[in-house]
Amino acid sequence: MTDHDSWVNPLHDPATDRRLPRIAGPSGLVIFGVTGDLSRKKLMPAVYDLANRGLLPPGFSLVGFARRDWEHEDFAKEVHDAVKAHARTPFREEVWEELSQGMRFVPGVFDDDEAFKRLRETVEELNEARGTSGNFAFYLSVPPKFFPQVVRQLKRHGLSEAPDGSWRRAVIEKPFGHDLASARELNAVVHEVFAPHEVFRIDHYLGKETVQNILALRFANTMFEPIWNRSYVDHVQITMAEDIGIGGRAGYYDGIGSARDVIQNHLLQLLALTAMEEPSGFDADALVEEKLKVLRAVKLPTDLGRHTVRGQYAGGWQGGEKVLGYLEEAGISPQSKTDTYAAVKLEIDNRRWAGVPFYLRTGKRLGRRVTEIAVVFQRAPHSPFDTTDTQELGQNALVIRVQPDEGITVRFGSKVPGTQMEIRDVTMDFAYGESFTESSPEAYERLLLDVLLGDANLFPRHQEVEESWRILDPVEDYWDRHGRPAPYAAGTWGPAEADRMLAQEGRSWRRP
Amino acid sequence: MTDHDSWVNPLHDPATDRRLPRIAGPSGLVIFGVTGDLSRKKLMPAVYDLANRGLLPPGFSLVGFARRDWEHEDFAKEVHDAVKAHARTPFREEVWEELSQGMRFVPGVFDDDEAFKRLRETVEELNEARGTSGNFAFYLSVPPKFFPQVVRQLKRHGLSEAPDGSWRRAVIEKPFGHDLASARELNAVVHEVFAPHEVFRIDHYLGKETVQNILALRFANTMFEPIWNRSYVDHVQITMAEDIGIGGRAGYYDGIGSARDVIQNHLLQLLALTAMEEPSGFDADALVEEKLKVLRAVKLPTDLGRHTVRGQYAGGWQGGEKVLGYLEEAGISPQSKTDTYAAVKLEIDNRRWAGVPFYLRTGKRLGRRVTEIAVVFQRAPHSPFDTTDTQELGQNALVIRVQPDEGITVRFGSKVPGTQMEIRDVTMDFAYGESFTESSPEAYERLLLDVLLGDANLFPRHQEVEESWRILDPVEDYWDRHGRPAPYAAGTWGPAEADRMLAQEGRSWRRP
Repeated sequence: MTDHDSWVNPLHDPATDRRLPRIAGPSGLVIFGVTGDLSRKKLMPAVYDLANRGLLPPGFSLVGFARRDWEHEDFAKEVHDAVKAHARTPFREEVWEELSQGMRFVPGVFDDDEAFKRLRETVEELNEARGTSGNFAFYLSVPPKFFPQVVRQLKRHGLSEAPDGSWRRAVIEKPFGHDLASARELNAVVHEVFAPHEVFRIDHYLGKETVQNILALRFANTMFEPIWNRSYVDHVQITMAEDIGIGGRAGYYDGIGSARDVIQNHLLQLLALTAMEEPSGFDADALVEEKLKVLRAVKLPTDLGRHTVRGQYAGGWQGGEKVLGYLEEAGISPQSKTDTYAAVKLEIDNRRWAGVPFYLRTGKRLGRRVTEIAVVFQRAPHSPFDTTDTQELGQNALVIRVQPDEGITVRFGSKVPGTQMEIRDVTMDFAYGESFTESSPEAYERLLLDVLLGDANLFPRHQEVEESWRILDPVEDYWDRHGRPAPYAAGTWGPAEADRMLAQEGRSWRRP
Repeated sequence: MTDHDSWVNPLHDPATDRRLPRIAGPSGLVIFGVTGDLSRKKLMPAVYDLANRGLLPPGFSLVGFARRDWEHEDFAKEVHDAVKAHARTPFREEVWEELSQGMRFVPGVFDDDEAFKRLRETVEELNEARGTSGNFAFYLSVPPKFFPQVVRQLKRHGLSEAPDGSWRRAVIEKPFGHDLASARELNAVVHEVFAPHEVFRIDHYLGKETVQNILALRFANTMFEPIWNRSYVDHVQITMAEDIGIGGRAGYYDGIGSARDVIQNHLLQLLALTAMEEPSGFDADALVEEKLKVLRAVKLPTDLGRHTVRGQYAGGWQGGEKVLGYLEEAGISPQSKTDTYAAVKLEIDNRRWAGVPFYLRTGKRLGRRVTEIAVVFQRAPHSPFDTTDTQELGQNALVIRVQPDEGITVRFGSKVPGTQMEIRDVTMDFAYGESFTESSPEAYERLLLDVLLGDANLFPRHQEVEESWRILDPVEDYWDRHGRPAPYAAGTWGPAEADRMLAQEGRSWRRP
């Protein structure tokens, strides 16, 4: 299998020896759950943006499947409105004209065989009319409980089987299960129908430029890797903070909580990229191998009471507005024990990281929206400076700002101007926005294109998903058996317990 | 002797545990050559700025000595005008009032015993009237050929001898000799009169904030020292470029040239600070010891023809103005072989730096005024990235911007936004101006205060001066015996030979 060949062996322009743009070959995309938020805000705009950048083939086709009484034109209008509202690149009539020629809508529900027959006819019609050559990706933008039904319908109606020389792929969104057992079950069902290399699990964090840049930063440079280990790193903090609450997502969120929603996937993937060894290359197999090695080495502390914290936001004021507490949100039981804040200490049992804590935290209704990885270094082993002069000198840190204000910050000590040797922390910044004229594609542009190209590098494999549940399950079990989440005021940085969790080890959370 | 005690054991405010400002004790300063440029543009303003910052004692006194028919008031007016024109801090009448009370002028020439008698009387009068307590520094802002005469006069008239419990110090400016032999001779003469700890050699580069920050950067932080060695550094470039010509300084400059004027002192001091091991502390003895160790380990390449370059600026256009070539400048012989550009490759024979070239260069009429130290790192030992993707990736570099735009720049590779793994150089900046509200004192403020406090940390010792001549002498000898400097157009970066000197080793000069 060489499903990642187009990335590993890219096309070159022999005249300039420059890599040619990665352009998808003949293909189409079927979206289940096309009326949902994700489809409207992310997938449809991403399809347009790719087309606008010239990265889709001329006959590219987009099929929507949903329980709606729509004609093809109604669907095209929906896409049109979504693109106008959410696309990253400017709207160009000629691009839209060509793209909209390939739009089809199939009305139906998942247990309706007739609907899947219509879907098959539509796919065949497109192969004829648009030259999609039998290459189709099926995007399951539906609640996970429908995954088994949809993939089995695809199989039953011959849609999962690729005609000779063509491909079929399935794209699924988190949550990939609820714990290790359910994840295994889900993987088994999906793999009944699709081979492992045909399944693309979307973790949209991996599509972010700043996340892909972790590998460039570490392995294309000389300066960072020598200090990227237990000899110099004191600890690592990985934070994904949101300032919003659950919004209208009570049905999805309650009973899942922040640890399952964010730590199990996004934060453990960030941890893997931050901590992994250099892969032998950047094909998917080599990358997965190294990420898996790290995830397998991740160990929870023995005393989960001391080294994990969960919280639940209380009502209060945020950004000048009165906001509800989690337990007052529509659709949430007043007894809910769901965590909206979670912090976990992890260690990595290998030669590079032994003894270096990785603190992961996420939460809703926190001080501000920010995702970052902070590598905090030990103090210099010896300071020849007077202690009075270094009172305002903290620990060196390298912070990868994943979002917003994408970039990198390095914090280090510098002499304060004046006639003494006083040293104070200063920062050095690199900002994507200032350094590149190229604007960053949306994560979904990158990931959808990768699906169409068969590039699996940025998609977690089922082993990674299962390994991540292996790490998180004991935490969730412990929480189930002990008390309930600690309340924290909206707009703060989580419950006091989280501060104590680090303070007991002489450390403190960054206030990003 | 603990002449550096005030820095090593600073005063603390027990309430805040903060270091108290370093304030000079009762003292006075005598300047020989008070009518010169240095005195007017640097020394007088620095005295005022120190007074304005409250760092001089109330009775501080300033004595001018020169061949002028001036009264004390004429001298005070000269200082007043110099301060108004060149001081860094705002002019405050009350500060000036107090400072000007202690100003005296002694007219005379150096072989005039009467003048030195008057100087002695003036010093004694000030001890009585202003409480200078017998503590005086003598600043020899005069051509070096007069050093022996002045110090001997000081001795003969009892001025070099400190009364019990007080101190006398001599401050001298470069050039400290013309080669090793003359430097030794000069040192011998000065040390006939003043003990080594009483002699302060000014290398004003060492008074610059950015230069002092080299030590803070390296030794107060964790991140840099691990990569500061032959395992990671490819080479180091130390540049001091001026855009001006020799101006009216033909008499000083001709026969000396750029290597003696800049490399022997400033650049070798920068090299020493960049390359030295961590000192056991920041007292002068410990610092000198480490700097000397490095200088002693500096080795010239065997083939000086291949690894040194000298140039002489030709006429042309610079900054929109027509400028003269060196040989056309007033007071310069058309046959002069004086170098106005010099580049030298050095190696440091020790465990940390073996095999890492240090390229030093300086010149007049170059592209722009800039002084910087660039530590250029090796490429990553292995790149897992496609070579097509790393065509625009250079070598990592850490650049200490000594002047102007004081700060630090780090260059490293980052992923270019887009849907490929293309990597390009970006930079990360720290700027003094943005990070600190404190404005940087002028180098002379720092250094004059150090003289009055007896802090010798930032002053090269005679051993360092001699070691630097030991390094440079063979280059000057070689140049004397071989040809003449290569001409280069004003406003360029020196002669083509300089580019070849690096190109033959697969490297190139930075264009700062």
